[in-house]
Amino acid sequence: MQDRDFSKTLKAHATAVERLLGEMLSSAPQKGEIARPERLLAAMRHGVLNGGKRMRPALVIESARMFGGIESTALRIAAALECIHCYSLVHDDLPAMDDDDIRRGQPTVHKAFDEAAAILAGDSLLTYAFEIVASDETELDAARKMQLTLALARAAGLGGMAGGQALDLEAESRTLSEGEITVMQAMKTGALIRFACEAGAIIGNAEAGERARLVRFGEIIGLAFQLRDDLLDLVADSATLGKAAGKDAARGKGTLPSLHGIAWTEEKLEALVAEAQTLLAPYGEKADMLVKIAAYIAQRNH
Amino acid sequence: MQDRDFSKTLKAHATAVERLLGEMLSSAPQKGEIARPERLLAAMRHGVLNGGKRMRPALVIESARMFGGIESTALRIAAALECIHCYSLVHDDLPAMDDDDIRRGQPTVHKAFDEAAAILAGDSLLTYAFEIVASDETELDAARKMQLTLALARAAGLGGMAGGQALDLEAESRTLSEGEITVMQAMKTGALIRFACEAGAIIGNAEAGERARLVRFGEIIGLAFQLRDDLLDLVADSATLGKAAGKDAARGKGTLPSLHGIAWTEEKLEALVAEAQTLLAPYGEKADMLVKIAAYIAQRNH
Repeated sequence: MQDRDFSKTLKAHATAVERLLGEMLSSAPQKGEIARPERLLAAMRHGVLNGGKRMRPALVIESARMFGGIESTALRIAAALECIHCYSLVHDDLPAMDDDDIRRGQPTVHKAFDEAAAILAGDSLLTYAFEIVASDETELDAARKMQLTLALARAAGLGGMAGGQALDLEAESRTLSEGEITVMQAMKTGALIRFACEAGAIIGNAEAGERARLVRFGEIIGLAFQLRDDLLDLVADSATLGKAAGKDAARGKGTLPSLHGIAWTEEKLEALVAEAQTLLAPYGEKADMLVKIAAYIAQRNH
Repeated sequence: MQDRDFSKTLKAHATAVERLLGEMLSSAPQKGEIARPERLLAAMRHGVLNGGKRMRPALVIESARMFGGIESTALRIAAALECIHCYSLVHDDLPAMDDDDIRRGQPTVHKAFDEAAAILAGDSLLTYAFEIVASDETELDAARKMQLTLALARAAGLGGMAGGQALDLEAESRTLSEGEITVMQAMKTGALIRFACEAGAIIGNAEAGERARLVRFGEIIGLAFQLRDDLLDLVADSATLGKAAGKDAARGKGTLPSLHGIAWTEEKLEALVAEAQTLLAPYGEKADMLVKIAAYIAQRNH
């Protein structure tokens, strides 16, 4: 596969998931909904249709494809996952949390609307994710929908992403140990990425062993994503990164790259990509895109 | 049934649901969770174990019982619903929303902890509700778990409770029409109460017609609850109500009792209780508790 094809495929997935989210978050109330308040809906759209890289949706779609899962179902689960990811960004940006005014060059939801709208838009995106999974329009048997619901709730909640954000906030008042940093990151960013890969295995009705393999693949991707992010923060300057670089360091937050240095991190990233390739080797060409995503995540410059 | 028995039964349901929530929100991480950050867990417990009346859980338990649903399952769904109700209180109390420092005589979560903890505790309670429904420990077939997940997400989200809260905030800057007030309240408080009654029908595997009957019963209860609440606000003084009375009026919010007066409201409440009795008449004695709950909600003084 050429790199151009890789980029084209990623872009196509992003476009597809954005189109679906745009349709689902149009103004007409769905069956079982009383009404859709316009301003809340606009705040939700602002939070979710913001031109993200849509990496998690691509992982859902490609891992489902590898197991022969229904494409339209994978796309819907990808959209649900993106609702969770984006709700977390909307809430993390709030003044009481990370207090960010700008995300991807646009005002954050609480700046474009107000804080109350941002809180409610986040709550509603989170809730909507579960509505999408359970919806009759999501073509999948109830047993697998339940597995997706359970895995998604665990990845997103107290024992996953939200818990990781709580630990990250704690890190502003005391220095975390290396072990604590690892747990915090596995929860805050790792859990949803792991879910993305596991979801594909569930959608494609993979056997338990294969599902466990995808879970491990997801963990590797999550680790690589975080290491690369922290490495970029350590070395990049504001101009190329497009956000205030060295922000973690300025806040006194320890990261694995800041503890171990650039060379260690680059070696670690190479090892993770190699492990990802070995894990997916049994799937041959079907795993091409997933392996390329792993390499891309480990090597990206933004 | 004696009134003493009625109160005892309600109290027993409240105790059971609180015991279960306390167990589930203990510190040990559950299967599939990486860790449970202590402070976040404490904030969630503060938000949910606060001695509420647990009216919604009682509706789930009693409506499931009427259809012969599994008691332990009804209790778990009741606990999930209470997580949703309590998350909404935690977020509604935030400074950017209703800005309340005290709830049921205790500091609200953002006062006892901080705003970030309150946002994350609310997010985590909301997410945890779906984890409970989908959990293997919830004894119910996947198809009915999916129906519960879907109905709960719709009741709680954009087209239900969260949307209603958004409309309620809008009402602070402009006067809503009577129709808008009705829609807002059907969403903000009605949708979850309706779900409570529908959930019992789903758990008890009721036929479509019976499920629709319970949905209507839930709508009646929701209306009665809101009318009584607004009526109490209109007439009560601070001393007996235990909260700042006339708060809605002070904020300039219109309610149906403030538009139509006390006599109209009392007649309306009587008519709702009568409709509830008629609706559940076919179930005979089995409906006793539900009918008593309807009367209690319409006549309570606090």
